Amino acid sequence: MIKAAIVGGTGYTGAELLRILLGHPQVEVVAVTSRGDAGAPIGDAYPNLRGRTDLRFIDPDRERLPDCDAVLFATPNGTAMRAAPGLLERGIRVVDLGADFRLRAAADWERWYGMPHACPHLLAEAVYGLPELNRAALGKARLVANPGCYPTAVILGLLPLLESALVDAGQLIADAKSGVTGAGRRVEVGNLYSELSDNFKAYAVDGHRHGVEILQALTAVAGAEPGLTFVPHLVPMLRGIHATLYGRLRAEPGDLQSLFERRYRDEPFIDVMPAGSHPQTRSVRGANLCRLAVHRPSGAGCVVVLSVIDNLVKGAAGQAVQNLNLMFGLDETAGLGAVALVP
Amino acid sequence: MIKAAIVGGTGYTGAELLRILLGHPQVEVVAVTSRGDAGAPIGDAYPNLRGRTDLRFIDPDRERLPDCDAVLFATPNGTAMRAAPGLLERGIRVVDLGADFRLRAAADWERWYGMPHACPHLLAEAVYGLPELNRAALGKARLVANPGCYPTAVILGLLPLLESALVDAGQLIADAKSGVTGAGRRVEVGNLYSELSDNFKAYAVDGHRHGVEILQALTAVAGAEPGLTFVPHLVPMLRGIHATLYGRLRAEPGDLQSLFERRYRDEPFIDVMPAGSHPQTRSVRGANLCRLAVHRPSGAGCVVVLSVIDNLVKGAAGQAVQNLNLMFGLDETAGLGAVALVP
Amino acid sequence: MIKAAIVGGTGYTGAELLRILLGHPQVEVVAVTSRGDAGAPIGDAYPNLRGRTDLRFIDPDRERLPDCDAVLFATPNGTAMRAAPGLLERGIRVVDLGADFRLRAAADWERWYGMPHACPHLLAEAVYGLPELNRAALGKARLVANPGCYPTAVILGLLPLLESALVDAGQLIADAKSGVTGAGRRVEVGNLYSELSDNFKAYAVDGHRHGVEILQALTAVAGAEPGLTFVPHLVPMLRGIHATLYGRLRAEPGDLQSLFERRYRDEPFIDVMPAGSHPQTRSVRGANLCRLAVHRPSGAGCVVVLSVIDNLVKGAAGQAVQNLNLMFGLDETAGLGAVALVP
Amino acid sequence: MIKAAIVGGTGYTGAELLRILLGHPQVEVVAVTSRGDAGAPIGDAYPNLRGRTDLRFIDPDRERLPDCDAVLFATPNGTAMRAAPGLLERGIRVVDLGADFRLRAAADWERWYGMPHACPHLLAEAVYGLPELNRAALGKARLVANPGCYPTAVILGLLPLLESALVDAGQLIADAKSGVTGAGRRVEVGNLYSELSDNFKAYAVDGHRHGVEILQALTAVAGAEPGLTFVPHLVPMLRGIHATLYGRLRAEPGDLQSLFERRYRDEPFIDVMPAGSHPQTRSVRGANLCRLAVHRPSGAGCVVVLSVIDNLVKGAAGQAVQNLNLMFGLDETAGLGAVALVP
Repeated sequence: MIKAAIVGGTGYTGAELLRILLGHPQVEVVAVTSRGDAGAPIGDAYPNLRGRTDLRFIDPDRERLPDCDAVLFATPNGTAMRAAPGLLERGIRVVDLGADFRLRAAADWERWYGMPHACPHLLAEAVYGLPELNRAALGKARLVANPGCYPTAVILGLLPLLESALVDAGQLIADAKSGVTGAGRRVEVGNLYSELSDNFKAYAVDGHRHGVEILQALTAVAGAEPGLTFVPHLVPMLRGIHATLYGRLRAEPGDLQSLFERRYRDEPFIDVMPAGSHPQTRSVRGANLCRLAVHRPSGAGCVVVLSVIDNLVKGAAGQAVQNLNLMFGLDETAGLGAVALVP
Repeated sequence: MIKAAIVGGTGYTGAELLRILLGHPQVEVVAVTSRGDAGAPIGDAYPNLRGRTDLRFIDPDRERLPDCDAVLFATPNGTAMRAAPGLLERGIRVVDLGADFRLRAAADWERWYGMPHACPHLLAEAVYGLPELNRAALGKARLVANPGCYPTAVILGLLPLLESALVDAGQLIADAKSGVTGAGRRVEVGNLYSELSDNFKAYAVDGHRHGVEILQALTAVAGAEPGLTFVPHLVPMLRGIHATLYGRLRAEPGDLQSLFERRYRDEPFIDVMPAGSHPQTRSVRGANLCRLAVHRPSGAGCVVVLSVIDNLVKGAAGQAVQNLNLMFGLDETAGLGAVALVP
Repeated sequence: MIKAAIVGGTGYTGAELLRILLGHPQVEVVAVTSRGDAGAPIGDAYPNLRGRTDLRFIDPDRERLPDCDAVLFATPNGTAMRAAPGLLERGIRVVDLGADFRLRAAADWERWYGMPHACPHLLAEAVYGLPELNRAALGKARLVANPGCYPTAVILGLLPLLESALVDAGQLIADAKSGVTGAGRRVEVGNLYSELSDNFKAYAVDGHRHGVEILQALTAVAGAEPGLTFVPHLVPMLRGIHATLYGRLRAEPGDLQSLFERRYRDEPFIDVMPAGSHPQTRSVRGANLCRLAVHRPSGAGCVVVLSVIDNLVKGAAGQAVQNLNLMFGLDETAGLGAVALVP
Repeated sequence: MIKAAIVGGTGYTGAELLRILLGHPQVEVVAVTSRGDAGAPIGDAYPNLRGRTDLRFIDPDRERLPDCDAVLFATPNGTAMRAAPGLLERGIRVVDLGADFRLRAAADWERWYGMPHACPHLLAEAVYGLPELNRAALGKARLVANPGCYPTAVILGLLPLLESALVDAGQLIADAKSGVTGAGRRVEVGNLYSELSDNFKAYAVDGHRHGVEILQALTAVAGAEPGLTFVPHLVPMLRGIHATLYGRLRAEPGDLQSLFERRYRDEPFIDVMPAGSHPQTRSVRGANLCRLAVHRPSGAGCVVVLSVIDNLVKGAAGQAVQNLNLMFGLDETAGLGAVALVP
């Protein structure tokens, strides 16, 4: 059994990691930290976990993590970068579900996250944890930067088009919609039920941290930095991201449907839906899965890709477990077989 | 008092017309028709209207409409076009909230709505009821085609950009999101609570009737038919449309904020929000209002317009009353003063 | 015109007061206070009020309220009791939408609200602002305690049964369900969208402040203190209270339907629905109205009353305006004519 | 491997059965029937099942069920009773998730379900499938009547009180609230999103089929038929039942908390929560679990029990699998280990 610790168990991502790992046949969770809830049974904080684990939260400031093979950080940005060097020295592998190791340039990180980076020397080593892009490197990684939720949905939808150079990389548009858990469990007026229910809005149109993360990944694919307009929106639902992606075709593209099917033929967690489909976010609720559909509406020279994930699973905890499986040579799908909950 | 009849009182649009007109100081509703509910008090069909009107539904097949000045059709497509000629002959003015008179070419109508047009000779006379575009003509109109909900939100957001020729009219993108009442009260599996709640999806990506309606209106503005990619989505909320509009700038555009403010300065039902704003659909819930915000994200040469309306009010019944006011020389805002309901 | 000031304009109740009073023909709002937002235009805090008023929030600590006839407190508990004596001395009438003057015994207040009462001498004078119970006294009141939302729904449903002594007053059960705005705009984990959506729960089963308020009002009606089990629940919706009330019949009750109809025949804001009805909360959304239905299921000697209100209107701001109308001799229904928003 | 067939795969219960059984280590689903979708891949009808099974729906009128050990009926009432006799003769065991075998008296069934019973001779043999009540009988059953969703939540909450005769069985009240999937996938106006969202209401106050089912089970426990007032309500959420149960204490009850804990100590799917708890429906979303809390509010001589289940799991498909496990001597928890999905 691989022994794993979760740092940051109070948020939704930490609880989702625990939910998934409790059903993993080859991973044992040996510790979960929480400053606010230290000492309390985990089942008290998350009603679904009551009776499912005997673990209590430990205080990361006062108790040393027990011996383990891997630590998964489900912490606010800026936490993992302080602890990672010490863990790596002890031979413990690290998956950060936050943003600390996602951007390769420390300057980018400081600009978008508002603080200096604590271990810039590790940025080059960190592997961006999108298995569909970096599977080989993940198999050898000590330190994995788990992608953001929007980037996962957007990059997976655009990859086939950019790898084949079928669209003008300078004119990409990603109109993305997220369920409310994407904002985490932050206690702010804007996250109240009474502010969000029966309502829809865009936010951060003038710049969002995930935009630069997407650009970095797409640059590696396209060869040069693409032009991307990224507009996130908030949907009154719990889980799910729906990215509607627009690309301008450079020429007659041939069969887009089979392009996508070929690209993702061997991917266990990508479902290219039949031509004409409209994937729904609920179809991946609770599942580690990205469903894609590609359309070419008549007239305007545009290709439209629809991409859905569960932001807490393929967009966070599920993908982290997928990465963990790869890092330790386990079956990539171990622990990730749950069917989505519909309705 | 203007005497008005509502044909088609069973659907949400008919009920919304009645809700608004019950508070109108210069319009009296003299009849509401409904095949299914003929004879029943209107308050039995709509719980909010109980005790607010003594009217009973009348059967349009068996009872002649009482004498009136105007008839508003809140009926399935194909109904108004059969009754309108007779009413106009009797000197009664007509507002159709359906699609029968929205497209100028009978061939377009037949293609998109799947039936021959019953009175193509009236299509040229019908005025497209978007006051911000056609106010003068509406003042003299006998027959008004009330715009669709998506077209209202999309056209109002794009007008300033196209009138000023600042964007490439060949590359417009309208990513639109609608609350569920946009689908009316159709009894279909796809409209069930259990299918739509906590879920998000696109639909009709390969072609939607409102796309051709938008194109027709924009062609009149731009001079030539634009290239438009229109993708509608369904949001788990009751009311509201949010259109996110993307235009490619042809050159350095100057001050987009003041362009929008100037264009709509005298419009009573358009609110150009301050720079940097993100309008919310709830901010117009129940109100006859379109709120707009214009953004220019860095980098990609794109202008982004956010446009919100209540699909049942500015997108249907409210706009119909606004048109009625114009047709009869009343104060354009009469009966339309309600503040949106938040939260 | 009556000049009114609103103290506490940041919460939902304050905003709802303003929404209603902006449409009131005989009341002018001359000031709205807010500590946090002092100086800001009111339309910046509430998106629906943008463009509807030129008022800015004033700081209650630094600016004296302008001359006015009435002050409405939409403040946290404990605020109005400190300011009321001074206002009454200046000849200004006071309506408190909080709980400061609801309980007649200072000891009860201190026990349930955890602080000593600042002006216990005013408790006897304060009139409990339920017009259906205290209309005459309200016409002469200087100081009105606006009822809580649960008490409004529960008391109105039980009144006819207790006045006629048809049920055993020692065995009353009120199973009440509230929309989320009932908790106000408090920024707490428990009020987050992600915690409340697609979820249902009871709370405060072992004792809720509104229980004692209900008991006090019912004692005045029944002659002795009733036995009441009051269980509140939280519904994933914005507005609305649904109280399901159970009474044990003392004898064959005769015609319960006409008992209710007679009791409320002349009440402008009570709708006794036809026998067999199930009132819906949406049927009163945004309206100052309580809809009631009375049932007598076979077998178990029980009468069941269903009572719905909008917690922010008949349960708070609308009822406050109704009280204001009575206090100043205006038409009781002035400004309260809005039809509920459905759907 | 036990071979099982599902009759009625179009509704939510059938799909939920399939979702659970796909993860069951000792049961193989060999056929799923659907009249409307015969021939279609199951993944086309349920977006979450796409790619998870190769089965296609078969037409129950035209194709014989393949050889199997058990048939589970997730069909409209009146279907299973026509097919069960033939299956039992072939040695196939039957679990009916509908109501056909729930009532012991054919007369009751005919009265409440409006049709004569097709095989009244089997009613005495059918075992009511509530394992916490009938575990021993279920181990030998050929024919199991899977309980209704409301009855499951209500009976489990009342059992300890009635078995110990602590409450007056003549005065029971069950105020029950259900998510929308409790109504199945029926295409009716009343089940539309636009009718149910942001709304709350009671229904069937004057009599609901589940009332008689509850009474029958409680009669067996209490010795005589109890007096029960049962009021169901509809909550705008997808899954979940919350029953709030009221009993009048006959005497000083002692320690109710330990009464409940003792009664359910060995039950794998009952969680008696700590004193003072308020179970949430989301805490059992997707899980085969009933969580209970018992309260004794001061004053009114009442005990209040809160009981939550997922109506599609412990209230339908999960309980059916639990019964199947018992019928075939498998581990009772096999295939039922999923943790609830929160948030």
